Amino acid sequence: MPKTLIRILPIVAVCAALAAFHPRGAAAGAGVTQFSLPNGMEIVVIPDHRTAVVTHMIWYRAGAADEPMGKSGIAHFLEHLMFKGTARNPAGRFSQQLAAIGGQENAFTTNDYTGYFQRTSREHLETLMDFEADRMTGLMLKDDVIASERQVILEERNMRVDNEPSARLSEQMGAMQYLNHPYHHPTIGWRHEMETLDRTDALAFYQRFYAPENAVLVVAGDIEPAEVKAFAEKTYGKVARRGPNVERKRPQEPPQIAERRVTFADPRVTQPSLQRTYLVPSFTTARGDDGYALDVLAHILGGGSNSWLNRALVMEQRVATSVGGWYQGSSLDDSRFGLYGTPASGVSLDKLEAAIDTVIANFIEKGPSPEEIERSKSRMIADYVYAQDNQSTLARMYGAALTTGQTVADIQARPAKLKAVTAEQVRDAARRFLDKRHSVTGHLIRDNAAREEKKS
Amino acid sequence: MPKTLIRILPIVAVCAALAAFHPRGAAAGAGVTQFSLPNGMEIVVIPDHRTAVVTHMIWYRAGAADEPMGKSGIAHFLEHLMFKGTARNPAGRFSQQLAAIGGQENAFTTNDYTGYFQRTSREHLETLMDFEADRMTGLMLKDDVIASERQVILEERNMRVDNEPSARLSEQMGAMQYLNHPYHHPTIGWRHEMETLDRTDALAFYQRFYAPENAVLVVAGDIEPAEVKAFAEKTYGKVARRGPNVERKRPQEPPQIAERRVTFADPRVTQPSLQRTYLVPSFTTARGDDGYALDVLAHILGGGSNSWLNRALVMEQRVATSVGGWYQGSSLDDSRFGLYGTPASGVSLDKLEAAIDTVIANFIEKGPSPEEIERSKSRMIADYVYAQDNQSTLARMYGAALTTGQTVADIQARPAKLKAVTAEQVRDAARRFLDKRHSVTGHLIRDNAAREEKKS
Repeated sequence: MPKTLIRILPIVAVCAALAAFHPRGAAAGAGVTQFSLPNGMEIVVIPDHRTAVVTHMIWYRAGAADEPMGKSGIAHFLEHLMFKGTARNPAGRFSQQLAAIGGQENAFTTNDYTGYFQRTSREHLETLMDFEADRMTGLMLKDDVIASERQVILEERNMRVDNEPSARLSEQMGAMQYLNHPYHHPTIGWRHEMETLDRTDALAFYQRFYAPENAVLVVAGDIEPAEVKAFAEKTYGKVARRGPNVERKRPQEPPQIAERRVTFADPRVTQPSLQRTYLVPSFTTARGDDGYALDVLAHILGGGSNSWLNRALVMEQRVATSVGGWYQGSSLDDSRFGLYGTPASGVSLDKLEAAIDTVIANFIEKGPSPEEIERSKSRMIADYVYAQDNQSTLARMYGAALTTGQTVADIQARPAKLKAVTAEQVRDAARRFLDKRHSVTGHLIRDNAAREEKKS
Repeated sequence: MPKTLIRILPIVAVCAALAAFHPRGAAAGAGVTQFSLPNGMEIVVIPDHRTAVVTHMIWYRAGAADEPMGKSGIAHFLEHLMFKGTARNPAGRFSQQLAAIGGQENAFTTNDYTGYFQRTSREHLETLMDFEADRMTGLMLKDDVIASERQVILEERNMRVDNEPSARLSEQMGAMQYLNHPYHHPTIGWRHEMETLDRTDALAFYQRFYAPENAVLVVAGDIEPAEVKAFAEKTYGKVARRGPNVERKRPQEPPQIAERRVTFADPRVTQPSLQRTYLVPSFTTARGDDGYALDVLAHILGGGSNSWLNRALVMEQRVATSVGGWYQGSSLDDSRFGLYGTPASGVSLDKLEAAIDTVIANFIEKGPSPEEIERSKSRMIADYVYAQDNQSTLARMYGAALTTGQTVADIQARPAKLKAVTAEQVRDAARRFLDKRHSVTGHLIRDNAAREEKKS
């Protein structure tokens, strides 16, 4: 029997893990340079001369939320297919050459963007750029590749969602949180739609969105902006603009007016748990500094062992074995603030949920102390600064910001913005945004009936 | 303070009202004739010689579920705009001429179809067809007309939804019932999208779907098929096919796996109530005779004073003042089975809901008696036959069937199909389809907090 893991926020989890990674040497990212090519491609160069390594990332402003109706999963499927070769470079050549020079590569798809990543020593940067520019226009897809790679993504869905009861609940909650906005469908795709994705769908998405004016190049490492510019002009600079269709057009949410709940019962659940999400502004959609207040709120209310939720529910009342909160601030459109908890033995989900609601009510009534605020902010700023010591984390910060409606200046202002958040702003954010009318609450429970059926 | 009205299923309500209307004379619809024009337009002629009146209806296989992403309400908006004139017939001429000859007209939009209806004396049929064929291709839309008619549909939304707490709850439930299928958005449209609908959107929908090969003409009345055919060839027959884009492509639902709930609190609610819907097959998507079994189930469980729910909850236990059920069988894709109830004074919604669930559990355990089945079926068949005595109801039956994936033969077989339903089939339908994992339950409650705020 596999253990049920709560995997609510993979991106935050990854960032947190990276933040704890290699916090050595001086902070990088001070002399960030930004410019554009005549074809509209944006370029960000982040000098980091601690080692002779460069990180090269191309980001497209196209993610699962930009998929056409009925084609869920095509952004992610295309990400896989981008490794299948071009007219000039047959399948595998790019990856093989990269491996031969000791490079690493990866790719990722979210609701808002798709990114391709390589890290290698500095002298190979132009080669990387040449390969990457080639596959911005030259992708060749044969039907047998489509069929076999579709099996790969379906298997990925099996692993990540279908065999994970908590992931299935999260998927249902996403669909209920967004009544109209395309964030309602899973990034991996609905299975029945993934099964029908074909070459035409992949090429249509590619031809619409994989355009220089829709791309952001981020290069971090032992390199100067002038060198990057010269290489970029010789490679990406040759790619023509794609035209007006590249603009993203996403349906937006109607006002959310009613509290929603969902219960998912599965025989594989060994430990019941609950999740709650609220529709909230992202850093991009927030008015004023609400995004930073929400960020601090998530930390004080549910970040780590000293949070309000953990102190009250795990340490004092002992009604939970774990509890926490998160805020997904990096998002082009309105985003989510989340809470989760696992009840202690003998405690019902309803009781844990009521206890969480009481902590929130207390928080709104009393607000955090100035000392708590300072402690949380210091920790968050330190994490943020330490995270920048990792070259790829640093590059990722800029890429994610620039593909979700933020700017280089926003990234650089974040520590100061966090520092300026007051206790009253955080309390006010809790009062305004932790509104149940904007929420979905999910209960994950064991399906005993199904277990009985299996036994008999 | 306006009274809150429960308006769960406008279409069923209308059909029921029509069924009680004019049940006089012999049943019509016996000699129904069906044929097509070379341009693909389907035509159904229903002879009814009781009076010298004809009903002329054109139905397009295009409804709210066929709208592009972000353009909710465009099917209904276009229905309004179709009265704004063509190159040949300026705005108002069609309606004025119809009024001058004592005719009536109307139009309607649902998830699956848009229809235009006129009734007049038989000698004017060809004129009607000429007007209607003209506006299949000749629509002229000026920007000032767009702006003013948009205000009309927004006002319609105010009246039908925004000022009706139960309608707002129904809208939320629809959005939660369908996680992916476009039935999740309201036919009238989300307000923020309606506000942006423009001439280009209306013409794009019109040009895609208002094509002869996507239309069904239904003529009922004192007319012979040969006459209709001759008129149709002279009018609709001149309209060219539109091409391949007319095909409907709708995202489908993923498997529904989790019970959903929603609570809507509004200060205008004077009487709490509850609704529940289950995703179920429609007549079109059902395997075998499941659609007919669901139809009988809705009647026995929740149709009228002698239903299981009414007997148990209103008459015996007195926990409800009203309770009922419905099945929306006529639907191109998977549809809904619904239950609703209003608690008696002093009874909570939770208690009423538990009582409803107990009735369902009893029903599944014991099933209906053969006498109940026979009584329900006889009543349903009689209603169905009586309904056909109303010429426009009769025409509407055929139009709705042919635009939701059914055939003339399906309509005509319905009494025999209903007659063949057994008690065991109905019980089995309850067991299989009243599955909470496929359900949404909505509670409508009074928002006392908001009332207090208003007072202070």
